[in-house]
Amino acid sequence: MSKPIVLRLGDIRYAQAAWKKFGQEYDVIAIDSTSGYTREKFLKELQDPASKLSKVSVITRTFPSVQQTGLFDKELCDALPSSVKAICHNGAGYDQIQVEHFLERGIQVSNVPELVNNSTADTHVFLLLGALRNFKKGMLQLDAGNWNKDCAPGYDPCEKGVVGVLGLGGIGRCVVQRLKAFGFTKFLYHNRHRLQDPELENGCEYVSFDELLAKSDVLSINIPLNAKTRHIINADAFAKMKNGVVVVNTARGAVIDEQELINNLKSGKVASCGLDVFEHEPNVNKQNNELLSLSNCFALPHQGTNSVHTIKIMEEFVVENAESYLTSGKVKTIVPEMKGKF
Amino acid sequence: MSKPIVLRLGDIRYAQAAWKKFGQEYDVIAIDSTSGYTREKFLKELQDPASKLSKVSVITRTFPSVQQTGLFDKELCDALPSSVKAICHNGAGYDQIQVEHFLERGIQVSNVPELVNNSTADTHVFLLLGALRNFKKGMLQLDAGNWNKDCAPGYDPCEKGVVGVLGLGGIGRCVVQRLKAFGFTKFLYHNRHRLQDPELENGCEYVSFDELLAKSDVLSINIPLNAKTRHIINADAFAKMKNGVVVVNTARGAVIDEQELINNLKSGKVASCGLDVFEHEPNVNKQNNELLSLSNCFALPHQGTNSVHTIKIMEEFVVENAESYLTSGKVKTIVPEMKGKF
Repeated sequence: MSKPIVLRLGDIRYAQAAWKKFGQEYDVIAIDSTSGYTREKFLKELQDPASKLSKVSVITRTFPSVQQTGLFDKELCDALPSSVKAICHNGAGYDQIQVEHFLERGIQVSNVPELVNNSTADTHVFLLLGALRNFKKGMLQLDAGNWNKDCAPGYDPCEKGVVGVLGLGGIGRCVVQRLKAFGFTKFLYHNRHRLQDPELENGCEYVSFDELLAKSDVLSINIPLNAKTRHIINADAFAKMKNGVVVVNTARGAVIDEQELINNLKSGKVASCGLDVFEHEPNVNKQNNELLSLSNCFALPHQGTNSVHTIKIMEEFVVENAESYLTSGKVKTIVPEMKGKF
Repeated sequence: MSKPIVLRLGDIRYAQAAWKKFGQEYDVIAIDSTSGYTREKFLKELQDPASKLSKVSVITRTFPSVQQTGLFDKELCDALPSSVKAICHNGAGYDQIQVEHFLERGIQVSNVPELVNNSTADTHVFLLLGALRNFKKGMLQLDAGNWNKDCAPGYDPCEKGVVGVLGLGGIGRCVVQRLKAFGFTKFLYHNRHRLQDPELENGCEYVSFDELLAKSDVLSINIPLNAKTRHIINADAFAKMKNGVVVVNTARGAVIDEQELINNLKSGKVASCGLDVFEHEPNVNKQNNELLSLSNCFALPHQGTNSVHTIKIMEEFVVENAESYLTSGKVKTIVPEMKGKF
């Protein structure tokens, strides 16, 4: 009997050993960033009986592999051969996968929750401090070779004392845990439903969405992107915020209406922002995105989990999910929408 | 009787109200950054009986005012009229003032301890995260208008687990307090003398200087600059460190032999550094300082306390020190070397 075929989409960086071991049990096909694949070629081969791709059982994928395959939408789902039973995504956010279509076809989807929390929260705190303290100008001046000239001072945590956490999930809780020692005066949060465990709330006060907007000096965004959260921070939401609010987003760019963020940074309504994510990434440059030129936008190019340790444990966990399906018929960490359905 | 004369050296930014009130009781002369004063002119007027400067009782000064007056060294001290009784410095570090000469002349010197701790520690943590996670390249690429290409991943706190604090004083303790929630595995510290209060140690293990160098994955420098600490981090010290150490300095540039730091960043012995201070600041540019061009040197131009709240409370505290001398004959926070001498 031939080994089950596993298709790996995207590059791996530190889990070579795990994949080598996995490859002794299963037949691994890899499509990486240098493979020259396009969505067109990919979809065609999936349906070509002469291609191994038409016999794949499990697909693993990375966030950047969207450049080879495009989104995991209805078209792609429909193009998958009936042999495909599980999609193992590397990352906590799986907005590139339109889960409902896969559910309909009986294909399990897993993500990597929890393991991303610490490094994403570290990135979040870094961006929060950079935005709050207005460090961008000084850093860029120094890089350009000039000493500090007229760097406008930023704020201390005690001056922007109320932190409002939108999304007190795994990452949000790690953010709060870190921020507790910095001298902020109060922590608020909004989730769709209030957390029932005071330990998980960790001293954060539950408020409505509108109250969170109205009361926060620092708005810390840690929600997944989905149909309900897309542009949840829109013109209306900005209008409800305090003047001089600091906005930090390490979740997904599209939870904010980016053009409105630009408008509010320019007007000063938003004092500054810290961003790891952009609405149209990776298509982000100075020509198409004014954010990059604003001195009060302190930003990184999606580096939230870009650390040796976190990349490695995430990559290894994807292998565990694939192996779990292949040995037990169930992935380890099925996405919430699919819970109890397999 | 005429009011005592107070000379204010350097600009004030947020303590206008405090100075206005103070100015109702005392005769304030100001020399700010736009005054056109040079050291030569300053020393000459101090000794000119026709100038009010020759009758000054108290001098307040800022760190940047060194550009108008030069260092408070023996020459300047000798040039002060006998009316001068107190120097009130704005800042925790007062290495611009050679205290022994002022002690000899019976002139009190005060600094601003404690109030700087929080904002300096915030800056320290920001630089530590930036260096640890290797965020510089991504930030600069984004500023140049390019998305993330080949940004080498940095490290998680659990990967560089041992934090060694050189100088567990007010700022060092605030740094530790903040870092506790980030997942580092161990905190070590070295002071000249072990702290006697376990509460102040806050779980940090006391080790010798050499042991600190040998065991730290992250070296957090929080010591004052003086004759004993100048270049305490020299070639010998770097040689004793772990390969791949991360070095963070928000104290004073000259506690590190900067050329050695450059050598060790280039060799990779030091994985990365986070710097708020430079040995020859403000004379720092790409022509005279290779640090600015190194992608593993993450740096700010001395922004440690550059926040609205901290600037204001520091400026106000300098007024309190001046007023304290003028009403009681003693400044509030005399520098340690002078304790018990007045």
